[in-house]
Amino acid sequence: MDEVKRLVQKIVDFRDARDWKQFHNPKDLAISLVLEAAEVMEHFQWKNKEEVEKYIETNKQDIGEELADVLYWVLLMSHDLNIDVFSALEKKLKKNEEKYPVEKAKGKHTKYNQL
Amino acid sequence: MDEVKRLVQKIVDFRDARDWKQFHNPKDLAISLVLEAAEVMEHFQWKNKEEVEKYIETNKQDIGEELADVLYWVLLMSHDLNIDVFSALEKKLKKNEEKYPVEKAKGKHTKYNQL
Amino acid sequence: MDEVKRLVQKIVDFRDARDWKQFHNPKDLAISLVLEAAEVMEHFQWKNKEEVEKYIETNKQDIGEELADVLYWVLLMSHDLNIDVFSALEKKLKKNEEKYPVEKAKGKHTKYNQL
Amino acid sequence: MDEVKRLVQKIVDFRDARDWKQFHNPKDLAISLVLEAAEVMEHFQWKNKEEVEKYIETNKQDIGEELADVLYWVLLMSHDLNIDVFSALEKKLKKNEEKYPVEKAKGKHTKYNQL
Repeated sequence: MDEVKRLVQKIVDFRDARDWKQFHNPKDLAISLVLEAAEVMEHFQWKNKEEVEKYIETNKQDIGEELADVLYWVLLMSHDLNIDVFSALEKKLKKNEEKYPVEKAKGKHTKYNQL
Repeated sequence: MDEVKRLVQKIVDFRDARDWKQFHNPKDLAISLVLEAAEVMEHFQWKNKEEVEKYIETNKQDIGEELADVLYWVLLMSHDLNIDVFSALEKKLKKNEEKYPVEKAKGKHTKYNQL
Repeated sequence: MDEVKRLVQKIVDFRDARDWKQFHNPKDLAISLVLEAAEVMEHFQWKNKEEVEKYIETNKQDIGEELADVLYWVLLMSHDLNIDVFSALEKKLKKNEEKYPVEKAKGKHTKYNQL
Repeated sequence: MDEVKRLVQKIVDFRDARDWKQFHNPKDLAISLVLEAAEVMEHFQWKNKEEVEKYIETNKQDIGEELADVLYWVLLMSHDLNIDVFSALEKKLKKNEEKYPVEKAKGKHTKYNQL
């Protein structure tokens, strides 16, 4: 994860050079996370399956930028809250394997508590 | 980014073992991204600055899991759309350095188009 | 709009009886609005067109409650900010008629600035 | 609620004149609801209490338009799903009175299941 650490440091340096830490309380960081996720979603609004596929082909860079914005806030928020989000994800995957055992969950989009 | 690649592969393997690719169209992936970001935000709802800080101390693991869920969808969506989201983030950071020059943006939370 | 006014008053009375005005700053009201809208959306996640239709039939009451929650925050936020949201909607409709002239917008889900 | 009914009819007529019903499946309606709620929230991002108050004074019309957009989708979605959202809200208020009894909930922003 050295490259990820280097990237996080870049994000923090960018922020600190602008003296923006003062605005980055957890509530507003979370608001930013939601707003950027909403911008990803907006790309697909009103489009049917075929339109979505065609749209992605010609707008991959824009969508990539929006996804990068979400990743930006995930990384910065995790940094500020002193959370190792990659390790948290590894643990979550293990948890999900128990919540969604293959034999029960295969081919179903049912939530674990209704399986 | 070898470790990230390995993690993405784990996520994809988890999904494919459950035959869930059929549900993972971009629109629903984006909906998932927003829903998980909203769950992060819910942790801070109604709390003032002091309450937020105290809450984080005793709920770090829960918040970490929610952030991991957001990261999960960022990574899976990027994988499915064939987007290198880390490289997109590097590019975005360069772009942001031009949009928010230090001398103009320092200490202000103004959007770039109003600086 | 007398009945709406009466409903808004009921919401405000409910709030004031619990001394909750102190928590209802505009930022947290807006967060609540988003969280409730997300709960509406969650009902449709992962479902295809047929599943959505079937789901609505058997879950109309739940969906109605979530939509009511969104309406709740729209009405309370408008009250607190001294905004006549119904009159704002009337104005918006007029504006939209100009932004989306029938001859241009008919049968298209294109945003007004790309029509 | 005659005036509300008239307003809903106006919204439906606006939609039908543009032949947009074809795009208005529940999933995309819910996405629209979330996106407009997010636009309300964006107005308050990064601002502290004092800045929020000052901002509202000079931007009341813009905020009103965004709240109107949320109300628009609440009304249209309720119409399409054949849900009486005002009556649902009346019922929800009664439910909330039981979930949040005054003596227990007064002055606390705790969720009902943790009261």
